[in-house]
Amino acid sequence: MNRRDCREVVGVVVAVVTLALYSSPGHAADPQPITVLVTFHSGTGNTEKMAQGVADGAKGVSGTSVVFKRVGEVAANDLLSADAVVVGSPVYFANMSGEVKTFFDNWTLKFGLFQDRKMRNKVGAAFATGGSVSNGKEVTMLTILAAMLVNQMVVVSGGGGFGASATTGPDSPGIDDKEVTEARELGKRVAEVAAVVKRGSTK
Amino acid sequence: MNRRDCREVVGVVVAVVTLALYSSPGHAADPQPITVLVTFHSGTGNTEKMAQGVADGAKGVSGTSVVFKRVGEVAANDLLSADAVVVGSPVYFANMSGEVKTFFDNWTLKFGLFQDRKMRNKVGAAFATGGSVSNGKEVTMLTILAAMLVNQMVVVSGGGGFGASATTGPDSPGIDDKEVTEARELGKRVAEVAAVVKRGSTK
Amino acid sequence: MNRRDCREVVGVVVAVVTLALYSSPGHAADPQPITVLVTFHSGTGNTEKMAQGVADGAKGVSGTSVVFKRVGEVAANDLLSADAVVVGSPVYFANMSGEVKTFFDNWTLKFGLFQDRKMRNKVGAAFATGGSVSNGKEVTMLTILAAMLVNQMVVVSGGGGFGASATTGPDSPGIDDKEVTEARELGKRVAEVAAVVKRGSTK
Amino acid sequence: MNRRDCREVVGVVVAVVTLALYSSPGHAADPQPITVLVTFHSGTGNTEKMAQGVADGAKGVSGTSVVFKRVGEVAANDLLSADAVVVGSPVYFANMSGEVKTFFDNWTLKFGLFQDRKMRNKVGAAFATGGSVSNGKEVTMLTILAAMLVNQMVVVSGGGGFGASATTGPDSPGIDDKEVTEARELGKRVAEVAAVVKRGSTK
Repeated sequence: MNRRDCREVVGVVVAVVTLALYSSPGHAADPQPITVLVTFHSGTGNTEKMAQGVADGAKGVSGTSVVFKRVGEVAANDLLSADAVVVGSPVYFANMSGEVKTFFDNWTLKFGLFQDRKMRNKVGAAFATGGSVSNGKEVTMLTILAAMLVNQMVVVSGGGGFGASATTGPDSPGIDDKEVTEARELGKRVAEVAAVVKRGSTK
Repeated sequence: MNRRDCREVVGVVVAVVTLALYSSPGHAADPQPITVLVTFHSGTGNTEKMAQGVADGAKGVSGTSVVFKRVGEVAANDLLSADAVVVGSPVYFANMSGEVKTFFDNWTLKFGLFQDRKMRNKVGAAFATGGSVSNGKEVTMLTILAAMLVNQMVVVSGGGGFGASATTGPDSPGIDDKEVTEARELGKRVAEVAAVVKRGSTK
Repeated sequence: MNRRDCREVVGVVVAVVTLALYSSPGHAADPQPITVLVTFHSGTGNTEKMAQGVADGAKGVSGTSVVFKRVGEVAANDLLSADAVVVGSPVYFANMSGEVKTFFDNWTLKFGLFQDRKMRNKVGAAFATGGSVSNGKEVTMLTILAAMLVNQMVVVSGGGGFGASATTGPDSPGIDDKEVTEARELGKRVAEVAAVVKRGSTK
Repeated sequence: MNRRDCREVVGVVVAVVTLALYSSPGHAADPQPITVLVTFHSGTGNTEKMAQGVADGAKGVSGTSVVFKRVGEVAANDLLSADAVVVGSPVYFANMSGEVKTFFDNWTLKFGLFQDRKMRNKVGAAFATGGSVSNGKEVTMLTILAAMLVNQMVVVSGGGGFGASATTGPDSPGIDDKEVTEARELGKRVAEVAAVVKRGSTK
């Protein structure tokens, strides 16, 4: 081996190591592949529209896959394989609907996720729709986040102060552009934080 | 009619009016007949024991009848015919159980009680059991009270700061005497306030 | 005394008894004299406008006197002599302002009202203003009500689901007519329930 | 350069690159230097003891520095230079004390931290002490977390479901070992998550 050969070998070694280093999932220049589960209950279609906004916002973050399901369709593995979970509910009597609450109860009763804190360190967030201002959207989002906190998830807001929300009653029917934007902002933020947490955990 | 006859007539009139006045349901010396609905979900029997304590406390207030039912057995008329409703839940994921939440949802979906605020001015209160301290008993009671407030019920605490509660996990299994006492105090307070509200409304 | 005289005596007796009966404080046809304390913190004037709406609504209920004070001006006797207390706050960081919270702390620290539950059975309610939708108005109202519940006050909503609220940020600056109406409805409801509770307690 | 020389050069290159790789701040084997601000209000010394537990738990995580201050002593820079902030309060009327609430209000009024969301992505957590079970410890922790969420902080629990808490009333005076352990667990968890978030953000 002559000097030139040696330089070449050194070059290859440096290149390989550099490649290994910079192509590592932890590098900021690379998208961190993450999965965001967006799940919801929707009686009238309003919460589903918000859910679509959250999904669109998350997809806009490079490297992000979205799983989009009604709460009744979610299986244990959807939760286990997600890096982040965003849960949306209509306001029923100042709180999440019974259907969404039952979904959370199933984290213990059917899925066995609580017992070993299997959702620990996954990112969690919430969104809500309600017929009038100050009628339970905050309580709905905060109690969804509370359910996530007891599972030791890492919780964020986005869009609005506690998550994304929309007022859908007679004075402001349906989901308007501003509300969809809020939903997209939430999705984007969740995906970004999930990428940070995954990158920070695996390096 | 002579003077004596006249005096007798006056005497009878006074007696009748006095009787009518003092036997009226509004008089403090008389028990105000009221009905308290105590309803609950119980997975292990702990919340049922607390419910029994609430019922016993209410029955101790003269004039009080108690209807004691699991949430799944409650019909619209149980709610409509009650002067006060006390709802108890185990803590599931930092909040009332899905079964209790679904019960509230049925106030609209099945019973049609919300639409005309048919529960307006009835007295409401809450109790909760949970596996550990600060794991959702407060949230459970406050969100039950929030559901009652949107129905324009009149809300009270009793026993503890937000209602009666019991810690039932490994460090303090089951319902101890102090917790039963708290439940009884809640039942007593609800019955007393319901009597005040009924008396004040009907006089 | 002849028959006509006797009839006249009977007539007077009936009239006097009837008058006594119907002029009693407990009769629904008569206004129940009550005092409502409306107290608030206002940084920009918005919460003060809502407070004025609450006061106007309460004054519309016959027999009601209103005491209108900033939280910093309230003395122990204002609280003790009120039949109902309505507390309003701007939303600061998703919760009542420090000024309003300090006012509540003074119920123990300065006024000694908590120790013997001196506010027991007085009617309580809340209102809030905040810059955007779902940014803490619900939490502000519910935590004001929670502070009242630990004092064993009797708590009501009105106007909105948890009390009266107004969104005052760039998208909806100031207090609009609908929000003032909500404030008036809260004041009216508080005065009405306070009259019921006072009548029911004193009969 | 002969074959052996060449091997040596290659060896040095690999060693240097390996060193660079493995000593990088992002590597899990290395402590991530972070700063945790533990701040509190304490009227009787109980909340201070819990704060000390939180600080001890955080210090146990390699690479962690703790700043320990009463809320009244915290300057803007303490908040800006922290990677995580843990706030503790005694329960006063079912909520954080006025002193702690005023501390949060100062994030806007004195420190100007809210306006550009300068606390964004810092980790936040809460702890609370209260005289009795279910008297406001949950509400205190959740409303501290809510204040953090509107600042777009990343929120975690630890120790208990919403954070660390202690019951300090007549039935269980002072802070017992189990409660100190809960405080330590919260400190440990906050430091660990803050390290993950910092590592994930800077790689």
